[in-house]
Amino acid sequence: MIVREETMSSEIVYNGKIVNLRIDTVELPKQRYSKREIVEHPGGVGIIALTEENEVIMVRQFRKPIEDCVLEIPAGKLDNGEDPKKCAIRELKEETGYEAENMEFLLDFYSSPGFTDEKIHIYFATGLKNGKAQPDENEYIEIEKYKIEDLVQMIKDNEIHDAKSIISILYVDKLL
Amino acid sequence: MIVREETMSSEIVYNGKIVNLRIDTVELPKQRYSKREIVEHPGGVGIIALTEENEVIMVRQFRKPIEDCVLEIPAGKLDNGEDPKKCAIRELKEETGYEAENMEFLLDFYSSPGFTDEKIHIYFATGLKNGKAQPDENEYIEIEKYKIEDLVQMIKDNEIHDAKSIISILYVDKLL
Repeated sequence: MIVREETMSSEIVYNGKIVNLRIDTVELPKQRYSKREIVEHPGGVGIIALTEENEVIMVRQFRKPIEDCVLEIPAGKLDNGEDPKKCAIRELKEETGYEAENMEFLLDFYSSPGFTDEKIHIYFATGLKNGKAQPDENEYIEIEKYKIEDLVQMIKDNEIHDAKSIISILYVDKLL
Repeated sequence: MIVREETMSSEIVYNGKIVNLRIDTVELPKQRYSKREIVEHPGGVGIIALTEENEVIMVRQFRKPIEDCVLEIPAGKLDNGEDPKKCAIRELKEETGYEAENMEFLLDFYSSPGFTDEKIHIYFATGLKNGKAQPDENEYIEIEKYKIEDLVQMIKDNEIHDAKSIISILYVDKLL
């Protein structure tokens, strides 16, 4: 049986710059109640960009939550109400300098629907022209390029640890 | 250039049942400082379980953060310090009733390394024996079975919206 959980009360316990933390009290069957901890997130985009040499543009950056550098596809969060495709064009340019002639929507998904509403929209960028990257003032990023078959092998070897990147690489390699 | 961000100060602003919200002040080059909002999460497991009829066991449940029912592989969060493989065996049994003769580690990844340390460990379960599900008191779950090629088609059609499920289905279909 699937039960929709009606909200009895809702409280924002922290209002952040990027995320909010909200606690909902929900009603369950038999007049029982439970709390749900919900991280509100504006959502984001990821871009899998393929050069004419059939290489994927990846970025490596330090991620504070895991205290390590992570290899990922270019990505970024949606500005308030921003169209995801516009965001994808903007983030690819800012992070890597590349402009894409074609920016095709592939799929969207929730990164972890048990505790956050973050939705990530994935775009496939081709027809790339290289320009100058314009990272945010607080963004320190290195660009690396990989053949897609090497990235697939890295996934098999458990060397890529970012969910949106794994999804995008397997999707483009296996489903396009 | 990749910059490791040293923690200057750190404050837990909310201590939850499942997640904590922590604000770190970090040092950047040129003696600049920034805040990082970090959702601490115990991590979890996902199980892609294949029956002898070559069907994948999926669960459908209401997810409060997105106010909708979501089709996912069986999954659950790690109890304090729990071994991920033991967690996978326990969660598969609790959510679906199935016990697996073989529980093979496939890969692990961060669900969204920009704001949370949540790490998900994926296991591949085969040699299944059906028993009785023992969901948590507050868990309402429906079990559905799908041929893996149908799940792959559903991913192409953008009908599966859970990151760990997309990764696990594409991994098993394309890489095993």
